[in-house]
Amino acid sequence: MHDQRYTIHACRKHFGWDNTIAPVETIAPGTTLRFECADAANGHFSAGSTAAEIATLDAGQVNPVTGPIAIDGAEPGDAIKVTLGDFEPSGLGWTANIPGFGLLADQFTEPALHMWRYEAGAPALYGPGARVPLKPFTGTIGLAPAEPGRHSIIPPRRVGGNLDVRDLSAGSTLWLPVEVAGGLFSVGDTHAAQGDGEVCGTAIESAMAVTLTFELEKGANLAFPRFRTPGPVTRHNDGAGYDVTMGIGPDLMAGARDAVSGMIDLLAAREKMSPVDAYMLCSVAGDLRISCVVDAPNWVVSFYMPRGIFG
Amino acid sequence: MHDQRYTIHACRKHFGWDNTIAPVETIAPGTTLRFECADAANGHFSAGSTAAEIATLDAGQVNPVTGPIAIDGAEPGDAIKVTLGDFEPSGLGWTANIPGFGLLADQFTEPALHMWRYEAGAPALYGPGARVPLKPFTGTIGLAPAEPGRHSIIPPRRVGGNLDVRDLSAGSTLWLPVEVAGGLFSVGDTHAAQGDGEVCGTAIESAMAVTLTFELEKGANLAFPRFRTPGPVTRHNDGAGYDVTMGIGPDLMAGARDAVSGMIDLLAAREKMSPVDAYMLCSVAGDLRISCVVDAPNWVVSFYMPRGIFG
Repeated sequence: MHDQRYTIHACRKHFGWDNTIAPVETIAPGTTLRFECADAANGHFSAGSTAAEIATLDAGQVNPVTGPIAIDGAEPGDAIKVTLGDFEPSGLGWTANIPGFGLLADQFTEPALHMWRYEAGAPALYGPGARVPLKPFTGTIGLAPAEPGRHSIIPPRRVGGNLDVRDLSAGSTLWLPVEVAGGLFSVGDTHAAQGDGEVCGTAIESAMAVTLTFELEKGANLAFPRFRTPGPVTRHNDGAGYDVTMGIGPDLMAGARDAVSGMIDLLAAREKMSPVDAYMLCSVAGDLRISCVVDAPNWVVSFYMPRGIFG
Repeated sequence: MHDQRYTIHACRKHFGWDNTIAPVETIAPGTTLRFECADAANGHFSAGSTAAEIATLDAGQVNPVTGPIAIDGAEPGDAIKVTLGDFEPSGLGWTANIPGFGLLADQFTEPALHMWRYEAGAPALYGPGARVPLKPFTGTIGLAPAEPGRHSIIPPRRVGGNLDVRDLSAGSTLWLPVEVAGGLFSVGDTHAAQGDGEVCGTAIESAMAVTLTFELEKGANLAFPRFRTPGPVTRHNDGAGYDVTMGIGPDLMAGARDAVSGMIDLLAAREKMSPVDAYMLCSVAGDLRISCVVDAPNWVVSFYMPRGIFG
């Protein structure tokens, strides 16, 4: 094991997956590195920001990732095994409704922004009556694809990338399929909390540092990434149970939209929130699940909102 | 409150939703009833059954429900609020791969059957090395639709029915949208355990009795059913964490298939199970989640398998 524990600084970042970007470092399997990650807006927002600043986001500067790192000996068909260690959250975060982006983009056409100040380990305050427990994770974590050229950071791919899987948090181990020599690993888009689905399009977006350990599994031949969690994944917010809304019909995407719309209506009425605040709260705290996908021709998609956040 | 606590016997069953079926009973809001529910195969299988008996299932006799019950004063636009009380499982269950049915019906074309003997409260044994914790719930629970005629029990609808939502278990409260006078409530298809998705098409299918309390909420105007759980929903099986596989791409259904296929491959290799046994185990114990649904054009569907069942 080569536990170097040096830092890859956030200035070593890029804005698109491209397997011709030269690695920042080449490491041996067994190496542990600390990565500084910018937030998905690359520092555009500050504590006093308002929704007006969403219009001035530079589309060419969103979702930077720190890297790439080459892993010695990694070849197409192998897997790079990444164990997620400590997170060092910055304490400042943002959640936005960005027009044209998000599951209900057709319903929520106006920009909205919520700024968060939080302390590591403490629940974050959302507004009157809602406290969102933190669970930091890496929104974007992946390898360079084999396909030549520069590829947007936004869509996830079989080599990983912008997975936005909220359980890629401290202690989890992720296997990523290698498509190019060295793998060319990058990480960024760190989130302080998010529910399954990331329904409004953003989480609690927050710059932070993360420590990762890299290993190599030869000939793993994975079709997609997979991961393992060291323990339960919802005990930080499930103690008081859930309110659950459903969407039922022949299309899973329509079902997801109906389930989230139902929760927004419920929260707006009960918690006296504006619909867009409810939508953003759903994104950072609620979970989309496929409850049943076999009773043709209709499926059930459910949206689970933890009741404990309303304390 | 009119706590009558009498039993609606399993012989008072029907095999299709039809708002002209005369109610077995008409009750006042506040009434508690105990329902005997047949299993989804209406008693077709016994402890010694084999896969050969799947071919002799009578399609006209599947998924019986007990009822219907009319609730005094219920009118279209109201909601019937059902609180789920005690479950009395029978101790015998079955899980099947039924050709032509299930998320991966194209891959699993041969019939397979697994019979379970279990004790209430104790984990059920699946086979070598896997023990599935029980969490009984009502697979089918709903009201008669307004649309005239007889409608198959298989697909769920906005009035509920074959929801197969695994958290409709003891202590949960369900709101069902009323479409016809009296609501015309029926329940059946009880399951001893199931994961989100019910991916092979069946759960631990098991006859049992369930006690339910009915209330009426006037003018609720729900688009779909919703429910509330009294506490956490996965603590019976999440203690050892999860193995998670993914499907990534522009179609949620394809993503669901890829995620489940990845888990079957992982379990078959690691646990030395046949693929169809792994598929059936996924159905009774693993959860389909939509991890991210906003990073166009690709979405991430994840399949979470609790590690603790392999003890």
